[in-house]
Amino acid sequence: MPPSTFELDKSHLAEEIRKRKARLVFLQLPEGLKTYGPELAAIVEEAGATVIISADPCYGACDLASVEARSVGADLIVHYGHSKMQPKAALPTLYIEAKAKTTVKSAVKKAIPLLETWRNIGLVTTVQHVHKLDEAKTVLLEAGKAVAVGDAGRLKYAGQVVGCDYSNAKAVSREVDAFLFIGGGKFHPMGLVLATGKPTVVANPYEKRAFRIKTEALKLLRKRWANIQEAKLADEIGILVGLKPGQKRIDQALKMKNLVEDAGKKAILLAIREITPEALMQFPTIDAFINTTCPRLSLDDAGRFRLPLLTPKEALVALGKIQWEKLCKEGWFEN
Amino acid sequence: MPPSTFELDKSHLAEEIRKRKARLVFLQLPEGLKTYGPELAAIVEEAGATVIISADPCYGACDLASVEARSVGADLIVHYGHSKMQPKAALPTLYIEAKAKTTVKSAVKKAIPLLETWRNIGLVTTVQHVHKLDEAKTVLLEAGKAVAVGDAGRLKYAGQVVGCDYSNAKAVSREVDAFLFIGGGKFHPMGLVLATGKPTVVANPYEKRAFRIKTEALKLLRKRWANIQEAKLADEIGILVGLKPGQKRIDQALKMKNLVEDAGKKAILLAIREITPEALMQFPTIDAFINTTCPRLSLDDAGRFRLPLLTPKEALVALGKIQWEKLCKEGWFEN
Repeated sequence: MPPSTFELDKSHLAEEIRKRKARLVFLQLPEGLKTYGPELAAIVEEAGATVIISADPCYGACDLASVEARSVGADLIVHYGHSKMQPKAALPTLYIEAKAKTTVKSAVKKAIPLLETWRNIGLVTTVQHVHKLDEAKTVLLEAGKAVAVGDAGRLKYAGQVVGCDYSNAKAVSREVDAFLFIGGGKFHPMGLVLATGKPTVVANPYEKRAFRIKTEALKLLRKRWANIQEAKLADEIGILVGLKPGQKRIDQALKMKNLVEDAGKKAILLAIREITPEALMQFPTIDAFINTTCPRLSLDDAGRFRLPLLTPKEALVALGKIQWEKLCKEGWFEN
Repeated sequence: MPPSTFELDKSHLAEEIRKRKARLVFLQLPEGLKTYGPELAAIVEEAGATVIISADPCYGACDLASVEARSVGADLIVHYGHSKMQPKAALPTLYIEAKAKTTVKSAVKKAIPLLETWRNIGLVTTVQHVHKLDEAKTVLLEAGKAVAVGDAGRLKYAGQVVGCDYSNAKAVSREVDAFLFIGGGKFHPMGLVLATGKPTVVANPYEKRAFRIKTEALKLLRKRWANIQEAKLADEIGILVGLKPGQKRIDQALKMKNLVEDAGKKAILLAIREITPEALMQFPTIDAFINTTCPRLSLDDAGRFRLPLLTPKEALVALGKIQWEKLCKEGWFEN
């Protein structure tokens, strides 16, 4: 295995296993870190515990496998790569955040020319880079920018965003001209655009480059609009209820069912863990879905699904309860 | 929707919902019946309960979603298509077996010439056709055969087999020359061959045809042999622990871990719900897997996986604990 670009905190891990006298550890890693599972398992075993690695997909702290861990008799969950989200887990849980080792300086420097027309910059990032926000801020200040790092109090760190929560960005959205997102991939900056509607530049520290995210965002908006229009024509609508602990919103699903029925359509509640095209295709009478689980599945993976898979807010537009313009203004996320 | 070829017992369903005064029903259907979910949901709602259909895959009664049902607040599980397997569920459960409406007579008649060289015939089927076993038996008796229908007491009906349990076939295996399997698909007859090693003829009542299953079985045996040989060379072995209630065998997994380590190899315990090639590929240092979950995944879906995925019995062969010949003689299944 090549050494990880993330700080896996191995000595902290060993120390905690010993301190907590853990006997059976359930180790959960996001997809990008699973490859280090066997290496980390060896450390846990050396510290005196047996370890079972979760091989199920894990896309966020909403996905904490406490039921699974308890069902195999584990007495400790070690959850890598995400900061604590759920107030109380059913089992003691050690979160290890896996901070990126890479510097962000040169990527942020490359972002400066792209931010040229704006003075007030909102700075956001994922948990992997929050410890480098000051480094990024310094570069921006030196370039004559004013920097805002929001803290709405919902997430662990100021300036932090997660896939479905941009409250820290929205907290400063009115006072900034544009956002600078630090991190890899387009998943979080796309969410940022959908949440705030603001111009967004990405500084990717792994590739040491910067780019504006605009065409993709417009393309996504057009797709969402088309999906909403298509869902309006549906006679039978499936309402997805998540089975992952942080994605279970029964009340919202029941509310959606009532709204769908009030609109004269049939509503079918469907419980689901992993949303796949294959699973949805088992219900050929259903014309569209409202997804109360992870909103990002609706937004980012729409291309994989043959039928519209609306977020609850989009469903409100399709059902004529709110305007498309309001959705665009207030953003796609509940937070 | 076209009418189902299965008896969905709709009036029984409605009656039970009313009698049990169910409030929130969790409806679980195997893949082939999910398409009737919305239709059945309407009946449940008419009987006075709210219903959530499980959209997760369901391949057997081992897959009873009691934890999921409880987690959404359901007070009754309705489980279609499989007979009761688990002695006690965490929630009241109504099993509806979905018997096939089709006759089996003409398919069995077509099987007679294929059974020509044998006199003593073991008769087996799935829960969908157990109510037609007498019909099949009569045809065989008329053709001058002696018929044995085994009952080992593990499954609900005499002569019944499920994907991982052929105890009723093995109960009569010594006294019969060949088996006649009644049902659709090759999944169960392939299991029958792996469990008993006996000549097996299939009478498919849906297609009203009969055929001998031999080439496929030999091909599968060759593949299993090759997989075992490949696993012998592995340095690091992943041991899969099932997260579905009827597929969770922690003690067996821990025993396998010890055996693997005794053989000087590394052993990694991996908990998993749905075994997919994508999930296993997240662990690139692992060279082979021992699968303590559903054995059929190892046997039937091996082609989907890049690496050997042995059943525990096959692992014993790979680790030199038992002979290949013994495996072939005693069969692939625990029961």
